[in-house]
Amino acid sequence: MNACVDLPRSLLRPGAGARPGRVYLVGAGPGDPDLLTLRAARLLAQAEVVVLDQLVSAEVQALIAPRAQVIDAGKQRQRHTMEQDEINALLVRLARQGRQVVRLKGGDPFVFGRGGEEAQALAEAGIEFEVVPGITAACGVSAYAGIPLTHRDHAQSCSFVTGHVKEGGPEPDWAALAQPQQTLVIYMGLAALPRICTQLAAHGLSPETPAAVVQQGTTAAQRVVTGTLADLAARVQAAGLRSPCLTIVGEVVRLREQLAWFEPAPVLSAACA
Amino acid sequence: MNACVDLPRSLLRPGAGARPGRVYLVGAGPGDPDLLTLRAARLLAQAEVVVLDQLVSAEVQALIAPRAQVIDAGKQRQRHTMEQDEINALLVRLARQGRQVVRLKGGDPFVFGRGGEEAQALAEAGIEFEVVPGITAACGVSAYAGIPLTHRDHAQSCSFVTGHVKEGGPEPDWAALAQPQQTLVIYMGLAALPRICTQLAAHGLSPETPAAVVQQGTTAAQRVVTGTLADLAARVQAAGLRSPCLTIVGEVVRLREQLAWFEPAPVLSAACA
Repeated sequence: MNACVDLPRSLLRPGAGARPGRVYLVGAGPGDPDLLTLRAARLLAQAEVVVLDQLVSAEVQALIAPRAQVIDAGKQRQRHTMEQDEINALLVRLARQGRQVVRLKGGDPFVFGRGGEEAQALAEAGIEFEVVPGITAACGVSAYAGIPLTHRDHAQSCSFVTGHVKEGGPEPDWAALAQPQQTLVIYMGLAALPRICTQLAAHGLSPETPAAVVQQGTTAAQRVVTGTLADLAARVQAAGLRSPCLTIVGEVVRLREQLAWFEPAPVLSAACA
Repeated sequence: MNACVDLPRSLLRPGAGARPGRVYLVGAGPGDPDLLTLRAARLLAQAEVVVLDQLVSAEVQALIAPRAQVIDAGKQRQRHTMEQDEINALLVRLARQGRQVVRLKGGDPFVFGRGGEEAQALAEAGIEFEVVPGITAACGVSAYAGIPLTHRDHAQSCSFVTGHVKEGGPEPDWAALAQPQQTLVIYMGLAALPRICTQLAAHGLSPETPAAVVQQGTTAAQRVVTGTLADLAARVQAAGLRSPCLTIVGEVVRLREQLAWFEPAPVLSAACA
């Protein structure tokens, strides 16, 4: 079969003594470790070094090879453990040491994961890399919440935005986002939720548009609060939801009443603990 | 640990002799079998019946348990092997026979997969179901094409639409889709590509906006054609791309020049076959 093809690239690489490093930008998915891809799970089991985001769940981290060095480059809002430039430089440095590096990111590395920026830094440094897509939060969380992102009767498109925008950068175009027959998913927008709901209603969506906030979707700690653009922010505050959360806006949210199939494992109450 | 919690639901179910059927709506991802989730791979290996979409790659189908009954409910454009209503009824019927059914769909079942409609039919019939999200084509294909869907400098949001809309249903709102600082992904829009490019330019995007069409992304048959809204349709026709294809529009497409890391395995030329 292979008689006619070019020599495999591996034969053209330096020998094992000078084995070049390589970085795998790997999506860890939304939290449930069963939602890792086969490729991601294999890379974690074989990793020499793992550079970790804070959004990677403990259950996923448990699949990292015990012998692997784990570097936590996690970032939380308003507390950047490492700046993006430092992370880029770290990945380049590790690869130049000849190591096989897994850069593990929550969700999908190319959807609000800054994977593009890390890939650019690697490319500029001449480091080989691969991208391993993951289940992005919008897909994973909505599936476990029983909310289809598209539906022929209710939403012919879906749109993903983030509450976090670059310092001084452009804001989302609310008029473009406030569209009927579309599902809007907002990543990490809990702090901005009141403003998001107000802006969408101000730009043309009915205040009665159904909307939901999902905390820690796909995990045992999943909590879902539904409402409308008019009352969602108050309901979420009353319920005491905490980050990480995902917000879903659109008629499809109504389908959850019928389609909520996932029941998180019961959590012991304080009285039981 | 469990002393305080309610009885597990399994204890309340009928005994093994009357084991109820169950349907798993499973995303098969974009083509590369390594992009299956761990849960999807396990379900395929244990399946009793698999009801199949035509968009599921042969490599993924190879992971189905050999003893499983495979029913091809595949649909191609303009040749619906089974109507959606028939598929819904089939899933209900199989589950009522007490069987464990995997409904395997290309990409993610809740993103243009009609998984929502199938879940509704199951819920209405009182059949238990689960949704197993998959890597949706937008994420998988863009990752393997070296095109980040979002990037702080170029795209603060991404939007997914389909060229296929419900007969007589509303068209995409082109003005809302033709936004700068956004990545637009069009599923299955090859036939409509000239119209899509024209409409986006007519509704405000620069004709010089970079755009790409990717055929069979993530597989050994992956082919990528890049251009601008002005010339993409002609380039794609000249290259002879064929469905299934995904179209990506936005400044991020330019990053492919630097970030294209995936080289499909060489395909034997006609002279070699």
